[in-house]
Amino acid sequence: MTHSEERDVWVVDVAPRDGLQNDPAELTVDDKVELVRRLLAAGVYRVEVGSFVSPKWVPKMADTDEVVRRLGPAAGRCTCLIPNERGYDRAVAVGLKDVRTVVAASATMNRKNFGCEPEDTLAEIGRVARRAQADGVRLWAVVATAFGCPFEGRVSLGTVLDLVRRLADLGVREVLLADTTGVAVPPQVARLCEASLSVVAGMGIQLGIHLHNTRNTGYANAFAAWQVGIRLMDASLGGIGGCPFAPRATGNIATEDLVHMLERSGIRTGIDLEALIRASDWLADRLGHGVPSLVPKAGPVPAEVYAVKGG
Amino acid sequence: MTHSEERDVWVVDVAPRDGLQNDPAELTVDDKVELVRRLLAAGVYRVEVGSFVSPKWVPKMADTDEVVRRLGPAAGRCTCLIPNERGYDRAVAVGLKDVRTVVAASATMNRKNFGCEPEDTLAEIGRVARRAQADGVRLWAVVATAFGCPFEGRVSLGTVLDLVRRLADLGVREVLLADTTGVAVPPQVARLCEASLSVVAGMGIQLGIHLHNTRNTGYANAFAAWQVGIRLMDASLGGIGGCPFAPRATGNIATEDLVHMLERSGIRTGIDLEALIRASDWLADRLGHGVPSLVPKAGPVPAEVYAVKGG
Repeated sequence: MTHSEERDVWVVDVAPRDGLQNDPAELTVDDKVELVRRLLAAGVYRVEVGSFVSPKWVPKMADTDEVVRRLGPAAGRCTCLIPNERGYDRAVAVGLKDVRTVVAASATMNRKNFGCEPEDTLAEIGRVARRAQADGVRLWAVVATAFGCPFEGRVSLGTVLDLVRRLADLGVREVLLADTTGVAVPPQVARLCEASLSVVAGMGIQLGIHLHNTRNTGYANAFAAWQVGIRLMDASLGGIGGCPFAPRATGNIATEDLVHMLERSGIRTGIDLEALIRASDWLADRLGHGVPSLVPKAGPVPAEVYAVKGG
Repeated sequence: MTHSEERDVWVVDVAPRDGLQNDPAELTVDDKVELVRRLLAAGVYRVEVGSFVSPKWVPKMADTDEVVRRLGPAAGRCTCLIPNERGYDRAVAVGLKDVRTVVAASATMNRKNFGCEPEDTLAEIGRVARRAQADGVRLWAVVATAFGCPFEGRVSLGTVLDLVRRLADLGVREVLLADTTGVAVPPQVARLCEASLSVVAGMGIQLGIHLHNTRNTGYANAFAAWQVGIRLMDASLGGIGGCPFAPRATGNIATEDLVHMLERSGIRTGIDLEALIRASDWLADRLGHGVPSLVPKAGPVPAEVYAVKGG
């Protein structure tokens, strides 16, 4: 398999941000640059390179500026997380042309993350959206806790659909529904994705998902999303990104395991799985601990012998 | 949630056999009896209590007779693996009324496991089937390597369907399609299950699946099987059952993680998830090592707060 622009699904790797942010290990700028380069070389659609939040809150992301500078032109295939307009300033100052904002579907989660109501966060995203349009910067938005909130529990379908519609109206190009704490199950993913796709139909919005495998439903959820028409998926190399106190128990779905499942299912990711596995092994070595992904441990299934069409 | 006979899906726990057989730990007869009792108390449909193979080949199963005797009447909800008529003799001698035979869809795997061709194994199953019918013993059959073989690679759909049809003709009551080495992906599971369901339609056969999560596709495969109408599923408490040299990398799908996904999806298993989680914690303690399941680590999602219907 070689990296190709022929894709049926667009996979974004969030390991350098969502992954490393919660990992007990401390990677150097050199390591982070190497990680991003390996991911891009393997053919992932985008890499979430870091975030522009206060280093007081997330000290591990304090070097994102430096990582982006060191990447040079390769940063053109990267995105980054910004919590507000100040983050936007820093992102464009270092030359990024692709940024991600976040709003939580649950008010409690939004307050805990951003210290304000979802309404205020939407207003901030609106300001960023106007500047992004003027600056030619591509804007994404992540809807956190779209499938449930650890504080509030249930999040209503209507709340999420309303957010999706308003984000689309603000000019956001990609909207990602995030299962922030890994509570979603396949029928729920199918239902919310279908309803959200209807909401943005004809608006030129790419709808995606951001899944965690906290309770072993992540890959089933990814497949359910694929089945209803989702073509944009976040994943994290090695499946890193969980709670630092139980590093193997939680985490984003692993990019290599997602790519393995999709490619074996005849769904083209444009990603070189072997390169991804080498990158995952390298990452585990740099982190100094095992990672939750399984394909690097078991080995991929050779495509030529296990033809899916043969049953 | 309490254990109930109201089920939409029938889950068989194979931890005492497929799980322990490959685990580096050595459990005592006391521990095995306790494990089976806990699984039955949680409400699983059947427990695969052990196997009647030569102790020379699988020394860890040498105490299956003793475990069954110690279980007393509780063994009435257990099944066991038998490789041949001699195994059948031992199973009925200890009073079991429910036995499982195996035949591999790949000839190489069948030779390695049983030292003979699949045709010879089918003849043996035929002999066992006639005796089981006369003895009032319920007979299952597992089709190993139904989704691919580590030696031969691809296994054709026609080969598996032919086996399913012939097993049904022999009077087998349950036929399980096994992804022995965790190579299957959801569309493959859907296709083979659908085709197999057609083959046995109207014959009074319950068709099931036996999945491994070797490459993180196990739960997605289980959901795909559910979607096409499969209502019988093997799983292993803790997700144990992998290669002893990489205990976290492989293994059966975990009963607690499967039950969590199904119940949250509104699919009734008749199983008490909390009891299963306590059993899983107890098992990990007895094994002296962590187990691959994730729900015990992350905690289940409280049903009352995360209502699926709410999105």
